[in-house]
Amino acid sequence: MAVTVFILNGPNLNLLGQRETAIYGDVTLADIEAQCAEAAKRLDLSVDFRQTNHEGELIDWLHEAGRVASGVVINPGAYTHTSIALHDAIRALSVPVIELHLSNIFARESFRHHSYVSPSATGIICGLGAQGYTLALEAIQPMASAAGT
Amino acid sequence: MAVTVFILNGPNLNLLGQRETAIYGDVTLADIEAQCAEAAKRLDLSVDFRQTNHEGELIDWLHEAGRVASGVVINPGAYTHTSIALHDAIRALSVPVIELHLSNIFARESFRHHSYVSPSATGIICGLGAQGYTLALEAIQPMASAAGT
Amino acid sequence: MAVTVFILNGPNLNLLGQRETAIYGDVTLADIEAQCAEAAKRLDLSVDFRQTNHEGELIDWLHEAGRVASGVVINPGAYTHTSIALHDAIRALSVPVIELHLSNIFARESFRHHSYVSPSATGIICGLGAQGYTLALEAIQPMASAAGT
Amino acid sequence: MAVTVFILNGPNLNLLGQRETAIYGDVTLADIEAQCAEAAKRLDLSVDFRQTNHEGELIDWLHEAGRVASGVVINPGAYTHTSIALHDAIRALSVPVIELHLSNIFARESFRHHSYVSPSATGIICGLGAQGYTLALEAIQPMASAAGT
Amino acid sequence: MAVTVFILNGPNLNLLGQRETAIYGDVTLADIEAQCAEAAKRLDLSVDFRQTNHEGELIDWLHEAGRVASGVVINPGAYTHTSIALHDAIRALSVPVIELHLSNIFARESFRHHSYVSPSATGIICGLGAQGYTLALEAIQPMASAAGT
Amino acid sequence: MAVTVFILNGPNLNLLGQRETAIYGDVTLADIEAQCAEAAKRLDLSVDFRQTNHEGELIDWLHEAGRVASGVVINPGAYTHTSIALHDAIRALSVPVIELHLSNIFARESFRHHSYVSPSATGIICGLGAQGYTLALEAIQPMASAAGT
Amino acid sequence: MAVTVFILNGPNLNLLGQRETAIYGDVTLADIEAQCAEAAKRLDLSVDFRQTNHEGELIDWLHEAGRVASGVVINPGAYTHTSIALHDAIRALSVPVIELHLSNIFARESFRHHSYVSPSATGIICGLGAQGYTLALEAIQPMASAAGT
Amino acid sequence: MAVTVFILNGPNLNLLGQRETAIYGDVTLADIEAQCAEAAKRLDLSVDFRQTNHEGELIDWLHEAGRVASGVVINPGAYTHTSIALHDAIRALSVPVIELHLSNIFARESFRHHSYVSPSATGIICGLGAQGYTLALEAIQPMASAAGT
Amino acid sequence: MAVTVFILNGPNLNLLGQRETAIYGDVTLADIEAQCAEAAKRLDLSVDFRQTNHEGELIDWLHEAGRVASGVVINPGAYTHTSIALHDAIRALSVPVIELHLSNIFARESFRHHSYVSPSATGIICGLGAQGYTLALEAIQPMASAAGT
Amino acid sequence: MAVTVFILNGPNLNLLGQRETAIYGDVTLADIEAQCAEAAKRLDLSVDFRQTNHEGELIDWLHEAGRVASGVVINPGAYTHTSIALHDAIRALSVPVIELHLSNIFARESFRHHSYVSPSATGIICGLGAQGYTLALEAIQPMASAAGT
Amino acid sequence: MAVTVFILNGPNLNLLGQRETAIYGDVTLADIEAQCAEAAKRLDLSVDFRQTNHEGELIDWLHEAGRVASGVVINPGAYTHTSIALHDAIRALSVPVIELHLSNIFARESFRHHSYVSPSATGIICGLGAQGYTLALEAIQPMASAAGT
Amino acid sequence: MAVTVFILNGPNLNLLGQRETAIYGDVTLADIEAQCAEAAKRLDLSVDFRQTNHEGELIDWLHEAGRVASGVVINPGAYTHTSIALHDAIRALSVPVIELHLSNIFARESFRHHSYVSPSATGIICGLGAQGYTLALEAIQPMASAAGT
Repeated sequence: MAVTVFILNGPNLNLLGQRETAIYGDVTLADIEAQCAEAAKRLDLSVDFRQTNHEGELIDWLHEAGRVASGVVINPGAYTHTSIALHDAIRALSVPVIELHLSNIFARESFRHHSYVSPSATGIICGLGAQGYTLALEAIQPMASAAGT
Repeated sequence: MAVTVFILNGPNLNLLGQRETAIYGDVTLADIEAQCAEAAKRLDLSVDFRQTNHEGELIDWLHEAGRVASGVVINPGAYTHTSIALHDAIRALSVPVIELHLSNIFARESFRHHSYVSPSATGIICGLGAQGYTLALEAIQPMASAAGT
Repeated sequence: MAVTVFILNGPNLNLLGQRETAIYGDVTLADIEAQCAEAAKRLDLSVDFRQTNHEGELIDWLHEAGRVASGVVINPGAYTHTSIALHDAIRALSVPVIELHLSNIFARESFRHHSYVSPSATGIICGLGAQGYTLALEAIQPMASAAGT
Repeated sequence: MAVTVFILNGPNLNLLGQRETAIYGDVTLADIEAQCAEAAKRLDLSVDFRQTNHEGELIDWLHEAGRVASGVVINPGAYTHTSIALHDAIRALSVPVIELHLSNIFARESFRHHSYVSPSATGIICGLGAQGYTLALEAIQPMASAAGT
Repeated sequence: MAVTVFILNGPNLNLLGQRETAIYGDVTLADIEAQCAEAAKRLDLSVDFRQTNHEGELIDWLHEAGRVASGVVINPGAYTHTSIALHDAIRALSVPVIELHLSNIFARESFRHHSYVSPSATGIICGLGAQGYTLALEAIQPMASAAGT
Repeated sequence: MAVTVFILNGPNLNLLGQRETAIYGDVTLADIEAQCAEAAKRLDLSVDFRQTNHEGELIDWLHEAGRVASGVVINPGAYTHTSIALHDAIRALSVPVIELHLSNIFARESFRHHSYVSPSATGIICGLGAQGYTLALEAIQPMASAAGT
Repeated sequence: MAVTVFILNGPNLNLLGQRETAIYGDVTLADIEAQCAEAAKRLDLSVDFRQTNHEGELIDWLHEAGRVASGVVINPGAYTHTSIALHDAIRALSVPVIELHLSNIFARESFRHHSYVSPSATGIICGLGAQGYTLALEAIQPMASAAGT
Repeated sequence: MAVTVFILNGPNLNLLGQRETAIYGDVTLADIEAQCAEAAKRLDLSVDFRQTNHEGELIDWLHEAGRVASGVVINPGAYTHTSIALHDAIRALSVPVIELHLSNIFARESFRHHSYVSPSATGIICGLGAQGYTLALEAIQPMASAAGT
Repeated sequence: MAVTVFILNGPNLNLLGQRETAIYGDVTLADIEAQCAEAAKRLDLSVDFRQTNHEGELIDWLHEAGRVASGVVINPGAYTHTSIALHDAIRALSVPVIELHLSNIFARESFRHHSYVSPSATGIICGLGAQGYTLALEAIQPMASAAGT
Repeated sequence: MAVTVFILNGPNLNLLGQRETAIYGDVTLADIEAQCAEAAKRLDLSVDFRQTNHEGELIDWLHEAGRVASGVVINPGAYTHTSIALHDAIRALSVPVIELHLSNIFARESFRHHSYVSPSATGIICGLGAQGYTLALEAIQPMASAAGT
Repeated sequence: MAVTVFILNGPNLNLLGQRETAIYGDVTLADIEAQCAEAAKRLDLSVDFRQTNHEGELIDWLHEAGRVASGVVINPGAYTHTSIALHDAIRALSVPVIELHLSNIFARESFRHHSYVSPSATGIICGLGAQGYTLALEAIQPMASAAGT
Repeated sequence: MAVTVFILNGPNLNLLGQRETAIYGDVTLADIEAQCAEAAKRLDLSVDFRQTNHEGELIDWLHEAGRVASGVVINPGAYTHTSIALHDAIRALSVPVIELHLSNIFARESFRHHSYVSPSATGIICGLGAQGYTLALEAIQPMASAAGT
């Protein structure tokens, strides 16, 4: 049976493809969801793809992942830089977690250069655009399969 | 047809007039809403006046404003100083946004001197009390009308 | 009639006893709730014990406490270190508020050494584990009784 | 009889409309003076509109305002960020003072993000262009009238 | 046989009740000593209550506690914020140590917000006035009894 | 014809698999080179895999890459955190560059949290161990093919 | 013949005795000038007492003092904290210079805690009110007499 | 009857006149004591002149001064820059306290530029050498006489 | 016809050659003016050489240069380090501006290491003594000639 | 006989004219070398013009210059901002050294605003493009001739 | 006659060998004293070996050393990081002073990375355990012998 | 058979004895090499003494030491303060490493006060001149002998 991976997206990511296309391109979050579904099929993963603007909801979902999933890919959006609560929620997980950013956060404003999530994450993929989601699924597949046994 | 302006109020502003009256006076949020309604009538604006203690909800409303409104007046309360997510949500808007504070935040504790919202805002009105809301509507009227066409 | 005290718990505290037991031990939040109920009985207090992962919900509950309770014990979890909105909500209360941490936050990562809540709190109890909740109720009992008259 | 309001402009504002029009637009200081005269008439205020490149002269004028005016609108230009002497001169006034900036100083270089004037000012209007002067006069009218009685 | 707990008080605490009563109230150190004696009796503890203005003497006493006591309650006064030597002396102890402050140090000057003692302490009680001493004894009783066996 | 990608490794990476295996595992640089060769074959890339302890040599190689390669994967080791010269050399390239770290640098000492290379890189892969090299080749393949035409 | 001492007063000191009397008392600058005249007579000094709001004028006067005076007492007001030019002008003098502040600048806002003038001054008198001027003249008398020979 | 003033000298001041004469001159502490005795006679003050290398002893003496003296002149030596305990002991006094330094501490190493004592002191005299002691006694005479009544 | 270049000198430069000759040598400002006149002749430039101690006057002159000159050489003295107003006035110019310092400001006190003028200047010449003025004229000649056409 | 001057160029300067031409223009390093040869002829200097990407090689060359040259012009590229070893190597020289930058480093990223080389250099020329090399040779000619005697 | 060297040990060193043996080993201070006696015999030195927890006593002893010893070896314990008074007392000595730490303070907490003593010391030996005392005596022997003549 | 110890010297140390003799004395590196040879003979060590100006070469040598030596004495010169790569290379060694500086780096410029090497070193010897090399060999002899078995 396919192991489950949560793909969680944080604040403002629902606007993807409509705005700031100079930075993010015109791919929408629905496009990314479709692309992830395809990759999941190829990698024999079951993915649960979600988005919210609420910090508390991201934490609720991470707790849920701790109960039902074997891995998490998370793009925490701007909460990356301000949320110690996310740091703690991820630290509490025993399954692998990959932090993902569409843009190169280190090439943007200095307040985006620090991440509270990174020290809790297993690995980070950053600046590779929508393709980063596929790479994250490839990277988490062997770990999640091991964890999901 | 009157263009629509969202007036969004952040955490603790529902307590206005009941507490810390030394700083904020005894005007309530309901009083301010009434005063805004009056000014809106005079300026031929349709205003949608809301308050929430949830950061995520403010972001949801800003996204909604991006779809249905021609301008935003926002008093983000304490999220002013900690929320990069609000910064991003405002940056994602193409309509004008005026940041508003009832008190002079620069004459208060040092952790209130920095705003993540200001760099994304069109303009700032600060320290002019409840009257600031009326001025903000006057300032946004010509911009919103242009944007709303 | 017994005065009411709110005991509010912030993000990730629902996981207590299941994870990071090296730091937090294996006591669960339900154990602590039971222990508080017992202490409340002995001290003739009525306690309302809650947990949430949402910053906005903590603020809503603090406002509610301002209307119906005579004291608050709050363990704000990671919001301790990032939330000026909590600072403001507590400052707006006239009843006593005791800030509580299970672990010694000053012996952990440096980003946990600063609390936005402490300057607004009446007192702080930190690093005394689950027993800290009982001590907090003992400390707040005379103050809340006075305030509750 | 109309109460008097000083409108004081600091260094480099005499160049308005000729240079850096990308930031400031092509409105000249003379245009703004005319627009203020018009607003003053409507609001029954007597305005005294001045510009100087000298920090000491701004201080002299603020002292003069303390003797003969009922309110001050000041755009301190670059002295905003470096002059504690202006801070003191404004603090010494008992009439209301509104600090004004044409552009949004928080969206520019970081050395423009701090204002020594703001903690002494009554209120701040920022980033609303030439229209900010009219709004400042509207805001100061009731205060100055009260002070001028 | 009752286990022994040292209660150590640092610089200027001998002035308690005579000065700065706005912050510290009019309870004297002798009052606190009496109150501790009473609590000790109830908890079956033997307490040794001392005060000194000398940093070196506090260290000598902590070493002595390491030889003869089963727990320490310490109010290090201003040495809290400057003494790494106290940090080391406490770290060298294997018995539990509770750091205590009468006032809420986080609501005072910023140079009182950092404690060199906290990372070495078992727990911290702060801002609960003289009652804090009783709570500290209650908290240390089970730990000291275990350590003292 | 296969496009060429340089894989450049910085100081101390020649020790891989022999030391600090708790952090880096027991994979050697030769193992990684073999794994890259295999992936390159599958992706129809020609890879040139090198290691040096000299900052100047890394710069020479980046210049060479500018002349003969269509993409670069670089693990700059400790020079990541100190070399503005590497920053400049990468900025001068028009082909895509992926920065790669075996371990999660953000979960290590604070002096490893800042990278001078990131702002110049196209993307970053970090903390995914030896597998990161394969992912980097997958990510760079389409970009390098486009650039190499 | 009596040696000459310049007594130079900086911005806002002309307002002395009229405003902020809670900090500065109700002594006027004219009162201080009279008191200095009296002390000068007793100490056989010729004093030249001046005030200006212009930084450049203070520098001009210090240059003049270098040509015609044997000592300087300077109360630089708010320029104390911002003027490196004053620092240089004083450093260029070979006669003794005493820096003087009416209030205790170290007990006020943090931006008044640093003085660019102090490292160039011979000595500092601070927080002793108008009496400080008399003490400064007593202190400078022997030095100025020696320098003036 | 003459009012009493304590003149307290901190660490290393007993070495005065023997070492670092380039900074401090060849006046000894005994010379200064004699000079103070003379000034005290003229001003009708009774002075108690002491020196210690122990921080705790300075605090003990300040407490003693609170009981028996009408004013304090203190040269805290290097404890100026590190002792919050001295800050507190001086703050606890209701009699006037003048902080005194022989050399200009602002023209020396940067770690001597900050004083914990200054915010608690009534006034500061600095850089005027041994003469500073006489000036301090003159300055404190009227205040101490008033306090000593 | 010769193009005009302004050579503007800031505070304390009128003292050149009289004081601090260890740093600045014994060349006077008049010597430099003569040397510039000679170089100007050779380069077919018309130079206008001025000095002032007033920040505001430097700004006035820069505005004047914007109207009548084709280039500016400015030695802003100590205003280099504190004046954002100069920064703005130079930024407002479209003609080339060379910032010049006689001494090597980076080998002096740390507060001279930062220049607000440099980011607005075309180029900087520093530490080459009086000869720097000649080099600056040589450097500006082709640029000013182009601009002056 | 002509005195010898070394002209040393650091990392990435070999790319000049090929890349980032928006900043550096299209002049190549060979063009600059030719221009320097011409100027050297006119000034009767013998120049030795070199480039390297290796920090250690720059140090070797500076040591060599100490033995055989009478002056050094150095453009240290990015090592300007990170190399204390260069600082030391230059400090060890007794011949004059002019630091040179093609672009205005103070108008670029903040990590280019500090130079470890400047405090050791005799003078700095910055932002004047390729012409800066000629000016540096003119400036160093009289100094090197004196040193070379 | 053998020259005298003081070996001074600061706070908590009396606990050596009993606690924190993971860091300091099980050598006691008495062991070290014996080892020093032996080395002193071999080197023909007379050593005076002392320990105290009091900062003031360390200063008293340093003053005494200035009168009767020819060299000082000092392990200031935690006062290393906080005592400017020790800095001054050592600076006042003309005999050589070697600062010594048993453990490598730079591999411990960051607040142990700075020493106020080092800038005043002749040399530093750190991290070489008890053997460091012998090395310090060897190093100081020739200096002390020269000084002691 | 004698165990081998590498003695590695970094940038600019080849100039020893020729320059900056006020700081380093007139001992040359050849003198030190001879002195080390003598000490090595006495201690039955085989020493390999080298110097380079290249950071990369120091790293190569440290790797070589990991294969063939039983201990390292390293004077990293200015790379001490800037090289994380050296930090890593030393951390990767299992043999003891003593960091050595001829001068007291803490009594020099502030940018020499921090060492990236110290946290990785076994011990540090600093400020004891050429004699420090002999002491380092004595200190490393027992450790290297143990490691070399």
